[in-house]
Amino acid sequence: MVTADRTPTYGYLGPEATFTEAAALRMPAVAGARLVPCATVHAAFTAVRAGDLAGAVVPLENSVEGSVNATLDELIRGEPLYVTAEVLLPVTFTLLVRPGTDLADIRRIVTHPVAEAQCRTWIAAKLPEATVDLGSSTAAAAEAVAARKPGPHGEPYDAAIAAPLAGERYGLEAVATDIGEDSDALTRFVLVTPPRTPGMPTGSDKSSLVAYIRDDHPGALLEILEQFATRGVNLSRIESRPTGNGMGRYCFAIDVEGHVADARVGEAMMGLRRICANVRFLGSYPRADGVHPPVRPGTSNADFRDAAAWLDELRG
Amino acid sequence: MVTADRTPTYGYLGPEATFTEAAALRMPAVAGARLVPCATVHAAFTAVRAGDLAGAVVPLENSVEGSVNATLDELIRGEPLYVTAEVLLPVTFTLLVRPGTDLADIRRIVTHPVAEAQCRTWIAAKLPEATVDLGSSTAAAAEAVAARKPGPHGEPYDAAIAAPLAGERYGLEAVATDIGEDSDALTRFVLVTPPRTPGMPTGSDKSSLVAYIRDDHPGALLEILEQFATRGVNLSRIESRPTGNGMGRYCFAIDVEGHVADARVGEAMMGLRRICANVRFLGSYPRADGVHPPVRPGTSNADFRDAAAWLDELRG
Amino acid sequence: MVTADRTPTYGYLGPEATFTEAAALRMPAVAGARLVPCATVHAAFTAVRAGDLAGAVVPLENSVEGSVNATLDELIRGEPLYVTAEVLLPVTFTLLVRPGTDLADIRRIVTHPVAEAQCRTWIAAKLPEATVDLGSSTAAAAEAVAARKPGPHGEPYDAAIAAPLAGERYGLEAVATDIGEDSDALTRFVLVTPPRTPGMPTGSDKSSLVAYIRDDHPGALLEILEQFATRGVNLSRIESRPTGNGMGRYCFAIDVEGHVADARVGEAMMGLRRICANVRFLGSYPRADGVHPPVRPGTSNADFRDAAAWLDELRG
Amino acid sequence: MVTADRTPTYGYLGPEATFTEAAALRMPAVAGARLVPCATVHAAFTAVRAGDLAGAVVPLENSVEGSVNATLDELIRGEPLYVTAEVLLPVTFTLLVRPGTDLADIRRIVTHPVAEAQCRTWIAAKLPEATVDLGSSTAAAAEAVAARKPGPHGEPYDAAIAAPLAGERYGLEAVATDIGEDSDALTRFVLVTPPRTPGMPTGSDKSSLVAYIRDDHPGALLEILEQFATRGVNLSRIESRPTGNGMGRYCFAIDVEGHVADARVGEAMMGLRRICANVRFLGSYPRADGVHPPVRPGTSNADFRDAAAWLDELRG
Repeated sequence: MVTADRTPTYGYLGPEATFTEAAALRMPAVAGARLVPCATVHAAFTAVRAGDLAGAVVPLENSVEGSVNATLDELIRGEPLYVTAEVLLPVTFTLLVRPGTDLADIRRIVTHPVAEAQCRTWIAAKLPEATVDLGSSTAAAAEAVAARKPGPHGEPYDAAIAAPLAGERYGLEAVATDIGEDSDALTRFVLVTPPRTPGMPTGSDKSSLVAYIRDDHPGALLEILEQFATRGVNLSRIESRPTGNGMGRYCFAIDVEGHVADARVGEAMMGLRRICANVRFLGSYPRADGVHPPVRPGTSNADFRDAAAWLDELRG
Repeated sequence: MVTADRTPTYGYLGPEATFTEAAALRMPAVAGARLVPCATVHAAFTAVRAGDLAGAVVPLENSVEGSVNATLDELIRGEPLYVTAEVLLPVTFTLLVRPGTDLADIRRIVTHPVAEAQCRTWIAAKLPEATVDLGSSTAAAAEAVAARKPGPHGEPYDAAIAAPLAGERYGLEAVATDIGEDSDALTRFVLVTPPRTPGMPTGSDKSSLVAYIRDDHPGALLEILEQFATRGVNLSRIESRPTGNGMGRYCFAIDVEGHVADARVGEAMMGLRRICANVRFLGSYPRADGVHPPVRPGTSNADFRDAAAWLDELRG
Repeated sequence: MVTADRTPTYGYLGPEATFTEAAALRMPAVAGARLVPCATVHAAFTAVRAGDLAGAVVPLENSVEGSVNATLDELIRGEPLYVTAEVLLPVTFTLLVRPGTDLADIRRIVTHPVAEAQCRTWIAAKLPEATVDLGSSTAAAAEAVAARKPGPHGEPYDAAIAAPLAGERYGLEAVATDIGEDSDALTRFVLVTPPRTPGMPTGSDKSSLVAYIRDDHPGALLEILEQFATRGVNLSRIESRPTGNGMGRYCFAIDVEGHVADARVGEAMMGLRRICANVRFLGSYPRADGVHPPVRPGTSNADFRDAAAWLDELRG
Repeated sequence: MVTADRTPTYGYLGPEATFTEAAALRMPAVAGARLVPCATVHAAFTAVRAGDLAGAVVPLENSVEGSVNATLDELIRGEPLYVTAEVLLPVTFTLLVRPGTDLADIRRIVTHPVAEAQCRTWIAAKLPEATVDLGSSTAAAAEAVAARKPGPHGEPYDAAIAAPLAGERYGLEAVATDIGEDSDALTRFVLVTPPRTPGMPTGSDKSSLVAYIRDDHPGALLEILEQFATRGVNLSRIESRPTGNGMGRYCFAIDVEGHVADARVGEAMMGLRRICANVRFLGSYPRADGVHPPVRPGTSNADFRDAAAWLDELRG
């Protein structure tokens, strides 16, 4: 959406000051835009589809928890949307306090249940006397600490477990960082926009699509994978999702290495289109990890061009 | 677990009177046993692993919502457990009232948010004047109606949207049945027990396993599928899950047609075992749908026996 | 070659009046042309390559004996030539006599060793008293009978075993037909010409090519076959031939169903071109058996066009 | 066959003193046995089948000319025989003279047509004045030189082009060696015996078999290759041969790396046996090249044993 002052507005899965907002702030495409939190992935995508938002940043998968089904299903069903960018963010929990509070002074902590579960070991070891209350989000916990809101016990909280961003936002200080268990856990966030021609290939690209099997038959998934393998296209992820049309009926959400403008990716996608009941393209975009994977011999754009020239000559 | 009176106790994902208890009541293996609700899948599996429960009934996947990740991850990680039985249950919502209440009298309804979403269209069409309040479970909603518990408005509810079982349990009557939108949605529930030698093959069996790829390389999934295809074993489901060891590292939860005692399934599993970093077997059990799929020519037990006899003779 | 009077001259593997000349006479492309016998396949192909012949008809394979290696190797090596047409001919042996000779009168027979081997059983049963002498060709045998040439015993032969065409050519009559053992044996003859753009597809076409593997590695043949399978192209024949560069180094002569102008054949050939060290195209031509094989769903020209239009739109 | 004095008799494709006899003399299995030449491959195999010979040494393929179809078809059809050993022999042509003859004195040469073709370039360069007459075999040519038999011109020959063995046999001297064009051409000779349990695996083995496709269908060859690929078995050679039952009906003669006693080879062969109309085993034997190819990870005998033990435990 372009507002009167021409600044586009993007949404993100709220509330404010959580990891998703942090991800949005890292996306070059969103730089300088107005950012608004959305209550649910569905609300965010509905606003994008309606043209009320230029795009939305949402979590797509986590290296521990797996796919965020709400995001995946919203992409699979409804009006087509594209993934335009991705960001990988470590999920690092920070213990935030009002300036002046020492670690030794902490008695009452508040946070979101997921964060509590991740940080339980650390709390037990370092603050065995402290109690932890649960709130609706890590950002709300930080806000409660900053505002000295009293808990059910009538006293304000001493500390919140939250994303580093929440500290900056609410004027809190970190007395301990990276206190979660899966300290190398990553979450993949994506920027979702209305469909538009993908940007130029960078050599370090990913493409996403959904393949719906024609007549559910044994070997259907094998056939799909062979379409990619024959053209030297590597899959980086495959996820089956129910189509909603009965138990045992699935579609496959697939991420591949390469860009729709790459000859090998394009030919594989056409192959999929021919053997599948339907293929929904979800966009090509630069890889967050910046890896330039080697192209298998015989599958570069130049190899495809040479072969096409050879065939043209044979055909006369 | 076997109690003093020798009656085994099984758990199910609670609360009582929901679809999971209904599924448990349909399982022959559980017939006559004591049934207790468990607060979470994790709690249920922990009790099974500890020997405090003989088994637990939990939802595994839904034809609309997909896998229940909590169940899948509990099966994939931690001490091995087996799937011993499965049941398919339609998710049918019923409008339950105290005996004597007419449909026309209904003003205030209570239910769980998922049920509310599913039945919103029906309510709008048939009971446009009614208000719907949300509670913690469909069973709790039914109980509230039966007990004439007042809502926030100070009046008892006229009706609850819940599973048919909740009607029986709380002495309520159904004034309307099957009022949800995805009226053919199915949920697959499984009985999970400590590992034990699977029962005899019935000709209508399924086997479940998890395959962990050795050195994450392109084509690894294709190789796994080929192990099955070469032996004529059909997959009925494949689900990728993160291993938790970094973004882009997955294992595959696979259901196949057939029993571990079937020669073709056994040989394919050995093939998987050889090419994978690890294979976790999750059990063989009768199919809930009772289908006896045709065995592909050349892949019956007799075919395997004949080929083995031939090879033995060649080897002398 | 076009002679002064503009009538093109075609060669065939001689001598005259054998099955190869009979095949040449059945080829529409050769109708009305001058036909000359060539001593060897090599001689015929050398003349075609030099422009001294417009083309040459030679045997390529026999349903009992297999490939004619001399023909295959001449196509694989040396300057490129195309197969432009094919004919299937039953190899039927006929017992030919001078008009007026009865079956009962036959005492001395002459023929070629291959024909003698094929007809030995029939002769033993029907003419147990007759002796069979061996000559250089079935046509020469027929000519000797017609010319009453004396054999080593000083007497003219009573009969020759030869192709039906030899009877017409030398004015002989058939007293028995189809006296060979493999009475349903077929030989496949091809018309070989300088490379030129193949004729239009007829829906009942074949294409021939030779694939040279890049770095002889296990699975190389499998990869070649997958290039065809992925595009729904059926092979009708595959023949390995040594490349001449050491034991264990082969190329593959392949016939496929379809025409180089068919989208699926063209794409498979480009795939081969990319993964192989070299691909030699040997032409597309109408099938001799006239079969119109069904096109697999998703692999028709229209399917390829639709997929290409879809991809073009995605690429913007 | 074992004669009265207990010395077995082996045959070889004659005549004497050709490359086939040289190959037979290199085979350990034949050492100390009586060796007799056979006129044709058919004659040799018939004698083996009848028990008149203990085995026969015949050429199977040449790195330039390809398969020796007579040998292949004799192995494919008729009573089963096994390949028990193989030898690779360079086809090196030698110019043989009576002791005392100088290269400069050579005017008249005799040899077999194949040898003449191979040595034409050398003769033209080194002995431009010499004439070459053609005889029935290289051995007969050597014998003629040794015996000073006159040629058609009435004079004895000065030299013969033949195998080195012919020089030893007929007391001739080599004035020039390795004068053929394809100086690195190899011929593969095999020892064929009645079926018997193959010897122990050596780690450097080959196995041969013939696969007959069930219902000739597209993709049948691909399925055969996949049976091998799935078990990590490499093919070293594949040759299609007509079954004799109509054009387009083939069987496949296949050589694989490994021994029938190797678990991966055995399992692949059982797979073939199940999907094919018929599989004819042609023996396992040590490789002539002595190569010990690396075994693909997960396909060693130990890997198969471990997987089998794992499965046994699962099956209880």
